[in-house]
Amino acid sequence: MSFTYGDNIKISIFGQSHSEKMGVMIENLPAGFALDEDKLARFMARRAPGNDSFSTPRKEADAVRIVSGLVGGKTCGSPFCAEIENTNTRSADYASLQDTPRPSHADYAAWAKWGDSRDVSGGGQFSGRLTAPMCIAGGVLKQMLEAEGIYIGAHIASIASEEDDCFDACLVSQADFVDTKEFPTLNDEAAERMKAVILAAKSRGDSVGGSIECAVCGMPAGIGDTYFGGLENRISSTVFAIPAVKAIEFGAGTKAGQMLGSEHNDPFTVTKTGDIRTVTNHHGGILGGLSSGMPILFRAWFKPTPSIAIEQQTVSLSRRKNTTLAIKGRHDPCIVKRAVPCVEAAAAIAIANLIL
Amino acid sequence: MSFTYGDNIKISIFGQSHSEKMGVMIENLPAGFALDEDKLARFMARRAPGNDSFSTPRKEADAVRIVSGLVGGKTCGSPFCAEIENTNTRSADYASLQDTPRPSHADYAAWAKWGDSRDVSGGGQFSGRLTAPMCIAGGVLKQMLEAEGIYIGAHIASIASEEDDCFDACLVSQADFVDTKEFPTLNDEAAERMKAVILAAKSRGDSVGGSIECAVCGMPAGIGDTYFGGLENRISSTVFAIPAVKAIEFGAGTKAGQMLGSEHNDPFTVTKTGDIRTVTNHHGGILGGLSSGMPILFRAWFKPTPSIAIEQQTVSLSRRKNTTLAIKGRHDPCIVKRAVPCVEAAAAIAIANLIL
Amino acid sequence: MSFTYGDNIKISIFGQSHSEKMGVMIENLPAGFALDEDKLARFMARRAPGNDSFSTPRKEADAVRIVSGLVGGKTCGSPFCAEIENTNTRSADYASLQDTPRPSHADYAAWAKWGDSRDVSGGGQFSGRLTAPMCIAGGVLKQMLEAEGIYIGAHIASIASEEDDCFDACLVSQADFVDTKEFPTLNDEAAERMKAVILAAKSRGDSVGGSIECAVCGMPAGIGDTYFGGLENRISSTVFAIPAVKAIEFGAGTKAGQMLGSEHNDPFTVTKTGDIRTVTNHHGGILGGLSSGMPILFRAWFKPTPSIAIEQQTVSLSRRKNTTLAIKGRHDPCIVKRAVPCVEAAAAIAIANLIL
Amino acid sequence: MSFTYGDNIKISIFGQSHSEKMGVMIENLPAGFALDEDKLARFMARRAPGNDSFSTPRKEADAVRIVSGLVGGKTCGSPFCAEIENTNTRSADYASLQDTPRPSHADYAAWAKWGDSRDVSGGGQFSGRLTAPMCIAGGVLKQMLEAEGIYIGAHIASIASEEDDCFDACLVSQADFVDTKEFPTLNDEAAERMKAVILAAKSRGDSVGGSIECAVCGMPAGIGDTYFGGLENRISSTVFAIPAVKAIEFGAGTKAGQMLGSEHNDPFTVTKTGDIRTVTNHHGGILGGLSSGMPILFRAWFKPTPSIAIEQQTVSLSRRKNTTLAIKGRHDPCIVKRAVPCVEAAAAIAIANLIL
Repeated sequence: MSFTYGDNIKISIFGQSHSEKMGVMIENLPAGFALDEDKLARFMARRAPGNDSFSTPRKEADAVRIVSGLVGGKTCGSPFCAEIENTNTRSADYASLQDTPRPSHADYAAWAKWGDSRDVSGGGQFSGRLTAPMCIAGGVLKQMLEAEGIYIGAHIASIASEEDDCFDACLVSQADFVDTKEFPTLNDEAAERMKAVILAAKSRGDSVGGSIECAVCGMPAGIGDTYFGGLENRISSTVFAIPAVKAIEFGAGTKAGQMLGSEHNDPFTVTKTGDIRTVTNHHGGILGGLSSGMPILFRAWFKPTPSIAIEQQTVSLSRRKNTTLAIKGRHDPCIVKRAVPCVEAAAAIAIANLIL
Repeated sequence: MSFTYGDNIKISIFGQSHSEKMGVMIENLPAGFALDEDKLARFMARRAPGNDSFSTPRKEADAVRIVSGLVGGKTCGSPFCAEIENTNTRSADYASLQDTPRPSHADYAAWAKWGDSRDVSGGGQFSGRLTAPMCIAGGVLKQMLEAEGIYIGAHIASIASEEDDCFDACLVSQADFVDTKEFPTLNDEAAERMKAVILAAKSRGDSVGGSIECAVCGMPAGIGDTYFGGLENRISSTVFAIPAVKAIEFGAGTKAGQMLGSEHNDPFTVTKTGDIRTVTNHHGGILGGLSSGMPILFRAWFKPTPSIAIEQQTVSLSRRKNTTLAIKGRHDPCIVKRAVPCVEAAAAIAIANLIL
Repeated sequence: MSFTYGDNIKISIFGQSHSEKMGVMIENLPAGFALDEDKLARFMARRAPGNDSFSTPRKEADAVRIVSGLVGGKTCGSPFCAEIENTNTRSADYASLQDTPRPSHADYAAWAKWGDSRDVSGGGQFSGRLTAPMCIAGGVLKQMLEAEGIYIGAHIASIASEEDDCFDACLVSQADFVDTKEFPTLNDEAAERMKAVILAAKSRGDSVGGSIECAVCGMPAGIGDTYFGGLENRISSTVFAIPAVKAIEFGAGTKAGQMLGSEHNDPFTVTKTGDIRTVTNHHGGILGGLSSGMPILFRAWFKPTPSIAIEQQTVSLSRRKNTTLAIKGRHDPCIVKRAVPCVEAAAAIAIANLIL
Repeated sequence: MSFTYGDNIKISIFGQSHSEKMGVMIENLPAGFALDEDKLARFMARRAPGNDSFSTPRKEADAVRIVSGLVGGKTCGSPFCAEIENTNTRSADYASLQDTPRPSHADYAAWAKWGDSRDVSGGGQFSGRLTAPMCIAGGVLKQMLEAEGIYIGAHIASIASEEDDCFDACLVSQADFVDTKEFPTLNDEAAERMKAVILAAKSRGDSVGGSIECAVCGMPAGIGDTYFGGLENRISSTVFAIPAVKAIEFGAGTKAGQMLGSEHNDPFTVTKTGDIRTVTNHHGGILGGLSSGMPILFRAWFKPTPSIAIEQQTVSLSRRKNTTLAIKGRHDPCIVKRAVPCVEAAAAIAIANLIL
């Protein structure tokens, strides 16, 4: 239930930030699917730290090496396993963290759980690095879902108080996706304002949070389960696996709590082609845990990157005394941009379990 | 993964709104625990439709009958099973719904999934009635967690735009809980404003949404798992099982996405008694999926009850034509008040899996 | 993993020998199946203690009451739950067992696990009574498998050293099943010899063991999984849930270990109708964990009923001293006859998880 | 449920016989355990094809490379992952098998399941090669169990009709294990007879089956679960994952079915040191699915290696015609010797899930 997910398509993640390798095994993939490895590489590249000013200077080739599960480029019914080497590690950057937990990081909680056995280097198993294997799994499953006519796309919805436009809740389609943009927003002017906010925080040694909106298009109606197996339960189960996510909203989300039933309810209608749809989509494509056939829409909220250069108050675990800490090392001033494919991957993992 | 939850303490729910019985089986409870059945009944009573004007006039005794798992009032290592009879059912109220799905209800999605085999009466497996077995499980597990020093309490945080006070994020304790109040808010004046909003909606045949804040006190540090097994993943997995929840926030939640790292990070400090705590609690007691030892705080948002008396636009499934619908039957103008113990139950189920 | 089984069709068992009720919940049954309750009752009757001399005089109506999951006699997509009342309990018979564990019973191991919290009455959760809920589940699933053309039948293969004939390994079909016989053997003379052995043991206050052969006919080829998910793994996982099973053999079983490859290998051949079959069936219908399309054949071995009237040596748990015990109460001199439908049920549960 | 096993300690296996790599991930290992890699290598060497005449001439270094989960040689709470490169592959040997399934192999069933997408080379996912990752997991877990005082050892019990001695059912201890012997039997003369049988079969291009007896010593009483979670269920779930196992017996096993209760029941007694034990151990250390504190004893039966050089009858899948086949490639005339550590590994995996 920790590094393993799924009952139908089973994902098992391994690795730490500075372990020799990290990777993912996927069990139960349908056999005979021709994986497009170039497409997978392009998907991975969206998550990789770029050459721009908005992310960590730690560079990783992050080349995905598939070591089992394919024969002649096609899935063969055996578990798929792919791995990434961790090459550019600077564990010395982390030595001091053994004793002084970083505020808002998992350091202290990990110490409480495992004591000195925990892996401190690079954040160990809590590192954002571990979203790479999630993206391998998500990238593979996205391709398979696309073969079923299901498309998943996300964009930066906000950085601090700067907001992007939203997807059209009723009409969003694959054509609206911005996965080829360097800075994936719907509105290019919003992108410029967001970049300015990030650079301003960076220049002060600070960081900023934000949010990501994600759409799943082409989902047939009636997919999902009730109760603990609802689509909201499943998607939140995978999205909260991305470090720094602190809230998730489906459809109207928190705003639904401020509405009247007569405002919020989405009337049904029959289209000219005889399909049943809703006129509005406050329900975000999910009713009773099941898909309604409308686009699934959700928004994930990210806290600001906890690693900041500004001096912070913390404690010495060994001496049980207050002390201060100014974090060195290479960190993202804002994780949101790189998290966009991770959110898509998380959605793909949750949905593939119901579809494939 | 649908009606069953948990790897350690396993919950299995059965029943529909109008089936003969509904109930819950709990596997793997520690043996030798003396269950307080009166306390369980009081917990169930908080969820039951009252005699007031704020909830459905459908009255249910909802007496919990324990049929296995106890010997002499104590758990014995065998699965615990308890059930409730569904007595006051008026299935005729639902006959017309077979063909005209109610906006924002699961009707249409259930028809897409199961066709005419689905159970329409009373909402079938999607009914809010099915939070009763969740509350049985939650009520039992809350008692067991209390024996471990862990207390869970929730209150109505908002109804429409009316807001209650919040728990003190760093200092909330069992003493702050309002479980004996008829209308569970921290601030009694807020309660009056909320009641007025609900009654106003009810008088128009409308409904309102709201939100519930929940605190888990006494949680030791280091509990939980990374990745898919984090506390946020686990709690959202159970909370979204409550019908009508459309968003969940942990700690600062959506606001975290609007903050700078220097604002959001919670500094660590050593208390006079030598304990390590944080000075603020924007992280809501969870770091890296693990408990930090601070109170766990989350907020669940509820859409307005979809069943409203106002005429709405819908479709005839058989004739594929637009039509209208004015819902009869007995419904809550606002589900939030009765959902307060459900949120506590969902939290208890998620946390008991890690603790017991 | 204890009282819950299955990833696709999930079975959850509850109850103890002397709890108020026992029962089973089945999650994820296909919707729209019309259950034949009379057929289910006839299946249950095969397991019930009869009026004959071969089983316990404890009489139980064992009427199955379905409390959820059906609408108009058909499955509706909600969990199916059915229960049996435990009426004819004589817990006083078991009071003395609290301190003196019965040889070859679970008493001592249960005391080691749960101490005095365990349920001693009637064997608690270890009682053969708990095969009744297994038979409910198995009876329901057998009906559903039959609708898919898959038939499961078993017969008594041996009692002590008395052997019945075997199913024809290549040609066994539903027509060979003996489920309407009072004493289900293929060879009626063997039945008479077996009855004599049981009555002889009974007259001495003793008991006897035996074995049951089970066939699954109509299984298409290619069903199952590799490794931990093979058909042998799955079937043994459910068959060992029947108390007293101590060995299981698939196909040639233990004899396979005494053969040469050239003897044991089953040659493939193309039939006149163009089907591919094997000429012999030493593999028992399973190759590499997958079905081969040939009949699946396995044999389960039962130890003699441990409850015997003959005085036995045991210990007093409280006094840590040797003592003796002569078991009173009502017990079967041979459990094998009543276990025949249990073996079919166990096979049905394992296979339904792969087929439905 | 196929390549993944366990609820507490989760094992995930990946790889095919001729994939680039194969390996295993183990989730949830206790943190802080210093793994003895040399000891692990010695355990792996027992399974590796030797230089002797009793196993396949395919030579594999089978060096285990641990790529995550250790820090400074100790477990750190992150998933452990180790892999083996598949170097000495001769896929051309298998090209002809694409169309002509080998008798008693998974070829035909795999074709029925996956069609031409299946991996034929080296047996794909059905290869005995895949017991190597099982042995990695088992070798790691054995070390951890030993730290808890639990020892697991196995020996060849029979080859064809040649029988080894048996472990002393009541007194077997670690001192009786034969893991350092080249040909692991208790009785050295039996070993010579067995070798002669294997070489005789080999010289004719034939193969032989056999059996392995395994003991688990030091198991405390009361470990395990009832019903589907019993020790027999769990151990058979993992042991049947070893290719070629066709039967499993616990304690007296099939013989229990031929005994009277008065013969089979194991009397309890208090030892001079005040411990409770049984005088005999027909129950094989398991009562009601729980450990009794006596040695756990089981025996697994292996069919003869299906790959034989003697010409056999089979079919052409594409032409639907009968044909013949004489298997080339490098194969073991008897798999039993190399399977001894696999049986220990399977037992360790099942038991570690209950103990660690």
